[in-house]
Amino acid sequence: MIPDVLTKGQFDTVYNVLSLAIAAQLFTAVFLLAVQPRVLQRYRQALVISAIVCGIAAYHYFRIFGSFKAAFVSDAKGGDGTYTQAIGESFNEGYRYVDWLLTVPLLLTELVVVLALARKLQASLLWRLIPASALMIALGYPGELSADNATRLIWGTLSTIPFLYILYVLFVELTRSLDHQSPSVRMTVSRMRILLFAAWGVYPIAYLLPVLGGDGAIAWVSKQAGYSVADIVAKCLYGILIYRIARLKSFADDAGFAKAEGKEEMDGTHEEIIETRR
Amino acid sequence: MIPDVLTKGQFDTVYNVLSLAIAAQLFTAVFLLAVQPRVLQRYRQALVISAIVCGIAAYHYFRIFGSFKAAFVSDAKGGDGTYTQAIGESFNEGYRYVDWLLTVPLLLTELVVVLALARKLQASLLWRLIPASALMIALGYPGELSADNATRLIWGTLSTIPFLYILYVLFVELTRSLDHQSPSVRMTVSRMRILLFAAWGVYPIAYLLPVLGGDGAIAWVSKQAGYSVADIVAKCLYGILIYRIARLKSFADDAGFAKAEGKEEMDGTHEEIIETRR
Repeated sequence: MIPDVLTKGQFDTVYNVLSLAIAAQLFTAVFLLAVQPRVLQRYRQALVISAIVCGIAAYHYFRIFGSFKAAFVSDAKGGDGTYTQAIGESFNEGYRYVDWLLTVPLLLTELVVVLALARKLQASLLWRLIPASALMIALGYPGELSADNATRLIWGTLSTIPFLYILYVLFVELTRSLDHQSPSVRMTVSRMRILLFAAWGVYPIAYLLPVLGGDGAIAWVSKQAGYSVADIVAKCLYGILIYRIARLKSFADDAGFAKAEGKEEMDGTHEEIIETRR
Repeated sequence: MIPDVLTKGQFDTVYNVLSLAIAAQLFTAVFLLAVQPRVLQRYRQALVISAIVCGIAAYHYFRIFGSFKAAFVSDAKGGDGTYTQAIGESFNEGYRYVDWLLTVPLLLTELVVVLALARKLQASLLWRLIPASALMIALGYPGELSADNATRLIWGTLSTIPFLYILYVLFVELTRSLDHQSPSVRMTVSRMRILLFAAWGVYPIAYLLPVLGGDGAIAWVSKQAGYSVADIVAKCLYGILIYRIARLKSFADDAGFAKAEGKEEMDGTHEEIIETRR
């Protein structure tokens, strides 16, 4: 439930964290488009998808930010004192779910695309990951809108089923297909999965905050901050790791390109050097 | 007829589905512009047209979204309770028809252009598809604006005549010209026509909802959701399939390009490999 009253500190916290998310996502999108020539052309598709994900997320944060600003007003001079819900305007939590419905399947797609796996394997992974992720988001939505904790828990539990399936595909099935990747790429993919797991782990916690902490303003503000920080990690940091994988694979594929980019052939693949020395 | 009153749930549904359409169309446009180097230059014209279609549609959805937001107001705190029509503002359904008048002829153009047919055949197809599609939209418009069900039905029926003619050209005449295309391109074109048929099939159903379901708010909300989802499928998903055809044709035309894009010569044309093996 959206609280009736926020303190000035609570209002400012949500305001600033939403703005941080806009800045991070918008400029990660610009960055990922600008660095396309820094990887071989076969890896640029993954960077474009990653930029699009960050762009879509930035668009939705503009909307969330506008919705939040309209939904709470202060009646004190200089915006001091408390903020209460405005007449005729409401904060729309639905934007987050519309955003996730578009971006989460794309996040999984970029991970699979950047690995440049065999076409059949790629199609098989995507055909399972994309529907599962869309289902996960769609099942969470009715619970998010509900003011009733039991309803929230039921939909949240249902949404966890496709989430566990995605983890299984990423940690068990994907691992089998990493044999042909270099050690440094394997390590980066492992880090990415852990990052994804950690960032995605924040969403259920934020989702459950209203159940754990009641309907208070603190729980609600923490939920907004949690969702926003998790979105920054899962989209921006994740996109930069996708870029790192594309760089490593580009250098490994083409020594001339690595040299033109100012990298020794084996640079950026620190682990490989160590391995060779042993 | 635009309903006098919407529940909060109905208001939020229209609000979120319109925002989903903006995000999907705007970022499909960006995507299609960003991936131009991912196809041979002879196929980029089709991608530009496809991006322009999505851009035009996103612009109109910004207008529709603004019009909807201004047209309904809640007088309760936090936007709770029902939403009623605002004084001095009305929801403008006309934006959709202005959008379709521009985008539908372009959608048919991109399909013909991406196939890189013989010049004379291409001109012949476009000279029939473009006027027919403009006529189809123009004839639907008077019925859409009418509050009278009989008027709606008459204009809807008239609009169906050019629609059937378009289907004839796409499914009968176009088929004859697909002989020179590879099996995988033929299969993708077939899928696109079915997608177009399915998406376009939603429009007449949404158009007839006020006739079938009366003047209720539920029929009106369903119509908005139906039009929006059909637009997302007919523009974004369609544009991504145009991209897929352009990729497949690029790989088939130029093995060196396919290799640089990280695709084996025959990769991406899975069906062809199977066919060859038989």
